[in-house]
Amino acid sequence: MSGTNPNAGRIRLGMVGGGNDAFIGGVHRIASRIDDRFDLLAGALSSTPEKSRASGEALGLQRIYDDFQQMAASEAEIDDGIEAVSIVTPNHMHCAAAVEFLQRGIHVICDKPLTATLEDAQTLQAAVQKSDALFVLTHNYTGYPMIRQARAMVEAGELGDVRIVQVEYPQDWLTSSLENEGLKQAEWRTDPARSGAGGSVGDIGTHAHNLACFVTGLTVEKLAADLSCFGAGRTLDDNAHVMLRFSGGARGMLWSSQVAPGNENALKLRVYGPKGGLEWSQEDPNYLWFTPHGEPKRLITRAGSGSNDAAASVSRIPPGHPEGYLEGFATIYSEAADAIRAAQTGATAADAMGLLPGIEQGMAGMAFINACVSSSSQDAAWVNL
Amino acid sequence: MSGTNPNAGRIRLGMVGGGNDAFIGGVHRIASRIDDRFDLLAGALSSTPEKSRASGEALGLQRIYDDFQQMAASEAEIDDGIEAVSIVTPNHMHCAAAVEFLQRGIHVICDKPLTATLEDAQTLQAAVQKSDALFVLTHNYTGYPMIRQARAMVEAGELGDVRIVQVEYPQDWLTSSLENEGLKQAEWRTDPARSGAGGSVGDIGTHAHNLACFVTGLTVEKLAADLSCFGAGRTLDDNAHVMLRFSGGARGMLWSSQVAPGNENALKLRVYGPKGGLEWSQEDPNYLWFTPHGEPKRLITRAGSGSNDAAASVSRIPPGHPEGYLEGFATIYSEAADAIRAAQTGATAADAMGLLPGIEQGMAGMAFINACVSSSSQDAAWVNL
Amino acid sequence: MSGTNPNAGRIRLGMVGGGNDAFIGGVHRIASRIDDRFDLLAGALSSTPEKSRASGEALGLQRIYDDFQQMAASEAEIDDGIEAVSIVTPNHMHCAAAVEFLQRGIHVICDKPLTATLEDAQTLQAAVQKSDALFVLTHNYTGYPMIRQARAMVEAGELGDVRIVQVEYPQDWLTSSLENEGLKQAEWRTDPARSGAGGSVGDIGTHAHNLACFVTGLTVEKLAADLSCFGAGRTLDDNAHVMLRFSGGARGMLWSSQVAPGNENALKLRVYGPKGGLEWSQEDPNYLWFTPHGEPKRLITRAGSGSNDAAASVSRIPPGHPEGYLEGFATIYSEAADAIRAAQTGATAADAMGLLPGIEQGMAGMAFINACVSSSSQDAAWVNL
Amino acid sequence: MSGTNPNAGRIRLGMVGGGNDAFIGGVHRIASRIDDRFDLLAGALSSTPEKSRASGEALGLQRIYDDFQQMAASEAEIDDGIEAVSIVTPNHMHCAAAVEFLQRGIHVICDKPLTATLEDAQTLQAAVQKSDALFVLTHNYTGYPMIRQARAMVEAGELGDVRIVQVEYPQDWLTSSLENEGLKQAEWRTDPARSGAGGSVGDIGTHAHNLACFVTGLTVEKLAADLSCFGAGRTLDDNAHVMLRFSGGARGMLWSSQVAPGNENALKLRVYGPKGGLEWSQEDPNYLWFTPHGEPKRLITRAGSGSNDAAASVSRIPPGHPEGYLEGFATIYSEAADAIRAAQTGATAADAMGLLPGIEQGMAGMAFINACVSSSSQDAAWVNL
Repeated sequence: MSGTNPNAGRIRLGMVGGGNDAFIGGVHRIASRIDDRFDLLAGALSSTPEKSRASGEALGLQRIYDDFQQMAASEAEIDDGIEAVSIVTPNHMHCAAAVEFLQRGIHVICDKPLTATLEDAQTLQAAVQKSDALFVLTHNYTGYPMIRQARAMVEAGELGDVRIVQVEYPQDWLTSSLENEGLKQAEWRTDPARSGAGGSVGDIGTHAHNLACFVTGLTVEKLAADLSCFGAGRTLDDNAHVMLRFSGGARGMLWSSQVAPGNENALKLRVYGPKGGLEWSQEDPNYLWFTPHGEPKRLITRAGSGSNDAAASVSRIPPGHPEGYLEGFATIYSEAADAIRAAQTGATAADAMGLLPGIEQGMAGMAFINACVSSSSQDAAWVNL
Repeated sequence: MSGTNPNAGRIRLGMVGGGNDAFIGGVHRIASRIDDRFDLLAGALSSTPEKSRASGEALGLQRIYDDFQQMAASEAEIDDGIEAVSIVTPNHMHCAAAVEFLQRGIHVICDKPLTATLEDAQTLQAAVQKSDALFVLTHNYTGYPMIRQARAMVEAGELGDVRIVQVEYPQDWLTSSLENEGLKQAEWRTDPARSGAGGSVGDIGTHAHNLACFVTGLTVEKLAADLSCFGAGRTLDDNAHVMLRFSGGARGMLWSSQVAPGNENALKLRVYGPKGGLEWSQEDPNYLWFTPHGEPKRLITRAGSGSNDAAASVSRIPPGHPEGYLEGFATIYSEAADAIRAAQTGATAADAMGLLPGIEQGMAGMAFINACVSSSSQDAAWVNL
Repeated sequence: MSGTNPNAGRIRLGMVGGGNDAFIGGVHRIASRIDDRFDLLAGALSSTPEKSRASGEALGLQRIYDDFQQMAASEAEIDDGIEAVSIVTPNHMHCAAAVEFLQRGIHVICDKPLTATLEDAQTLQAAVQKSDALFVLTHNYTGYPMIRQARAMVEAGELGDVRIVQVEYPQDWLTSSLENEGLKQAEWRTDPARSGAGGSVGDIGTHAHNLACFVTGLTVEKLAADLSCFGAGRTLDDNAHVMLRFSGGARGMLWSSQVAPGNENALKLRVYGPKGGLEWSQEDPNYLWFTPHGEPKRLITRAGSGSNDAAASVSRIPPGHPEGYLEGFATIYSEAADAIRAAQTGATAADAMGLLPGIEQGMAGMAFINACVSSSSQDAAWVNL
Repeated sequence: MSGTNPNAGRIRLGMVGGGNDAFIGGVHRIASRIDDRFDLLAGALSSTPEKSRASGEALGLQRIYDDFQQMAASEAEIDDGIEAVSIVTPNHMHCAAAVEFLQRGIHVICDKPLTATLEDAQTLQAAVQKSDALFVLTHNYTGYPMIRQARAMVEAGELGDVRIVQVEYPQDWLTSSLENEGLKQAEWRTDPARSGAGGSVGDIGTHAHNLACFVTGLTVEKLAADLSCFGAGRTLDDNAHVMLRFSGGARGMLWSSQVAPGNENALKLRVYGPKGGLEWSQEDPNYLWFTPHGEPKRLITRAGSGSNDAAASVSRIPPGHPEGYLEGFATIYSEAADAIRAAQTGATAADAMGLLPGIEQGMAGMAFINACVSSSSQDAAWVNL
């Protein structure tokens, strides 16, 4: 019999937010485990010490804190303190928590959107720039293998110069005003104080915007947005219609909605150039439809015939056995682990991050939200990003 | 043995345009035959007498004319002259031909869009108003059974008040500049003199606009349009992004494109209200997806379980045996036959027309095209229709 | 003005069966009109003179007969009598009617299956062999463009030697015993005296069998069948499970069912060889899925990229505008028209028929039904065809 | 700050097989981590001590053994030895390894099929019966939420008494004889000495058989099988056509294939009764199609509208965010963890196991394989199971 130190390779992780009721905290935890690259050891999981402790104990955490300030201070001091922290609170708390860890050199993995306000975003950006620690923003959809495939295909010129980008993210969960019926998720996501200036554009429009830019390698230069509040008593948009003009001349449309019955998380991206077209749907993520112009449409499957190295490198199992949302999310975590190890051994942040979304994508998302809100308040005038 | 006069019930029909090379003429002819309501007897099928004669002989027409003027004059004189005429020329000739027949009391079935210019449209509108004859515009997609079903469901309040309308009509056939390679269809459709001010918005955007209004019962009050010409050397739009504001407060997006590889005639309509959502695709027309909010999505099939009377009344065969484009087109023709018989026996034009698209829908389409072009020339400012 | 004899090219057609209540008669009539190759002039449409007259008058027939004997005798005598007759009665009357016309040199277009009994089938076969007239059996699914495409691809070796054939035709309309509730269609189709020895195997299994053979070019050499009657009080099978062994070593399965809720006319064919696979569904007939082994699956569309001449030659309209069941049926009629004209000008029956299904396919269908019934009665022993 | 013992709740796990080249070992490891119920501590991962050590070190195992005998003996002795072991070797080694652990009271989680031979299966069955430890067989597809939903719906009578079961599992990876080209997976899976008497029927047919029985609650009483070897030089079946007769009178078909180009892991189950039908596909596992007879087909989504408690209880994230193969597999692991804890606190094996597949399902799978092989050798005669 021989043996190894089982924890040698894993990154010591903490978590802020993600207590019992939260959806996204559990997702981050599973994602951190799938490829076995992290050990979740410490946490300040909730807004009160009691709830934090209850949630921490339920998870078997070694070190449970009353709040993130205490946690950051303490973890920075101890031997074998956490190397990285996941921040999974509502948006308005991202900045304060992230800054606390960044200034102590603890790497941050933060849920999106970046912050609730532009001021916070700028504060956070400054903190990232000053810190040696990495800042990863979990735009998790970029972790899907077929999205990697699509990005690589566009980059390789398989579509020619992109002309048209159609992206949409409709949901239906806010069709009724659930925020008035005590649903916690609905409460904070429809509350400007906690979510920021964007409703659907902040929560899911940012995902659509990020994905379009990630796959095409383009940036949105200007947009014209028509935001609506259909739910009774709502102040944040629950539906957004946006026209996009990209660097390089491509044009696009973006639709986000939380009031479209029959749509769960129907994020869909379509990209067209003179040489071909690509289509992808988040709810069926193992498929990428590629039409070389003038040829039959082809169904490229994850890890199957026609899939490329970019997809294979983030794929775990053979084709025909579907990977899902959690695996795509896990890829972000595993690449964050790689990035942290690289940073710890001297790589620059830029080199370490690779394709990982970070502060830059976060700021772009904030700019997108603010441009949408600004444009809509000017009756959908074009606004530069 | 007994017998009947076999032609008693059929309407005597003529045709202007639709010679050998044309796509849409053949479609009209098949559509007129499917339900056995018309006899095609006379025609001026092409721009020169020789070609007109050749095409007419190939079709076995009883009376072949050099041009539509001669045809209108002659048919109005003879016993058993045509009762109705189909006009299937390029757009710029619709007006002159239609006026010629309308002023002689011959019913007109005209391909869309109405005309190439707003002036022509107004001329034609005046002629329709002055004539006792009917004017039917073949917005054929309104003849699909599941579109009738959708309209009836919206009208019955099954979605509640419509909030969101997403409609799109992408194609890919002009991805390359085929008009420079001698393709006749591509030549006239990209030529402002023959097609009018709209490229994709005129040819297919009008279909999308018409369908959205037909199903929802709403009108577009204002729009903001961003038109593009991606094909080299093109002056008419081949891609259009349009934001819509409807009567009653609904918002929408319309996308038309002729340069989106992988799309053949991918007309798709989605309508959402607080009580449910509907989704329909022209390429799979026998299916209507209906989601009552909070319940599983349902697949309603033509003539199948869950289909309503509005669909059944325009359905020919049992569910699971697909009806297609030609049957939807035939429904317009058959309803035109009903309307003509009703008008001949004293019904008012409004009563006779029922759900049939006519001059009003034609004028709305022209207004849509002009608003798109006007808005786009003002950098996508809102323009009233 | 010039003109032509409008009826010169059309074939003078009569019809036996297909009165007011019948589904399939109306289908045959539309199919005969779509390509404008037939004039329906005469008929004996129902089992009583009164009903026959009423139905004939409703259709505007020139010559209405009390029964098919009278009709055959009379039409054979008169100038400009019918050249061809469509037989669309229940199965047990096919033989007597067809023989009556064949022996007078009138071409027969007959609905499937061939007859209700093997004796009748042999009688009919003898009549066909003795007659100069053609006998066309409307295995209409062979008229779908993508089925023609598939057949041509197999023939060209694009799959290699066929190994596996999976074919199925489930329906759900007899899930409840509607024959006990007065539904006429259900009554005769579940009655051995009118339908023959096969229930689902006769009505729809024969379509599946025919289609598999048509596309692969193979014949079924032996089969083992397990037939079931799930509907209370039924004597004919309403569900059939069949294992197939084809000429050349291919193996297959065939499933027909009338009691599978959620299936309308879900005829589906899949064919696999060492070089590739093909998949096609009748309810979405404009698509053919082709996977060259080791490459991504391709979506070949009717008249679209990747479609071949075999599909194009039976296609009427551009890709993306769906053709349906009636157009596929019309192709059989139009090819029958070609065949009749060819026979009238001296072609041999074999040359005239081309790909058209005829007596040979009818006998193969009867052999299939009888083998299924025989095998099932021997507890699914293998039976040679 | 407070804290907990982080390993208190997790089950100490070992693994036999699953070294570097193996596909299924990695799957088991991820599945064991997703819900955080296991700590993988020890292993004998490969057939030689060197390879076992290399694989164990790569995984950071605490205790690496040369072989499973050494491992079982040692782990049973030490404090905090493993509580359970995963056996993920080729089939022919399952029995010996499992027996070794079972007789020491260590719970076994074993890949399927049970063993390579019936003798081994009986030996193993005896060992399970004698042991206090549990035996879990990873028929992982039973862990998919929509399969749980389907089972519960059938059990609740939503289909009525099941009449028809159509199940299939086609793949294409052995279309060419890869076993002759050095692919290790292909070598052992086509080798009777390592796989047993069944080729496709053993590897994937058993999954199809198990799933059909799991969902319907029925057992297969007799079957007739026609097995084929299409790959050159193959002795085990690579394609199987099987007719099924179930307890209670239901009939079915099962198709397994490894030579059907265009199919990755296209496991599909359809179940029909007089009151409705269900359809499910493994490659799109978040969807369950349900047709109540006479109503429109409904799309039930994982955790979405219409999903039931049985699905919800094994679902991790909201609807529209797809869970995949690994999550379904993880459910088996998590239920195994529950079962082990229950057994440790006195539950009977039957109570502890709940819906988990175990020795009974393993023996049923062996009976299925043997019946297929036996039937096929008798020219598809019916064989009792």
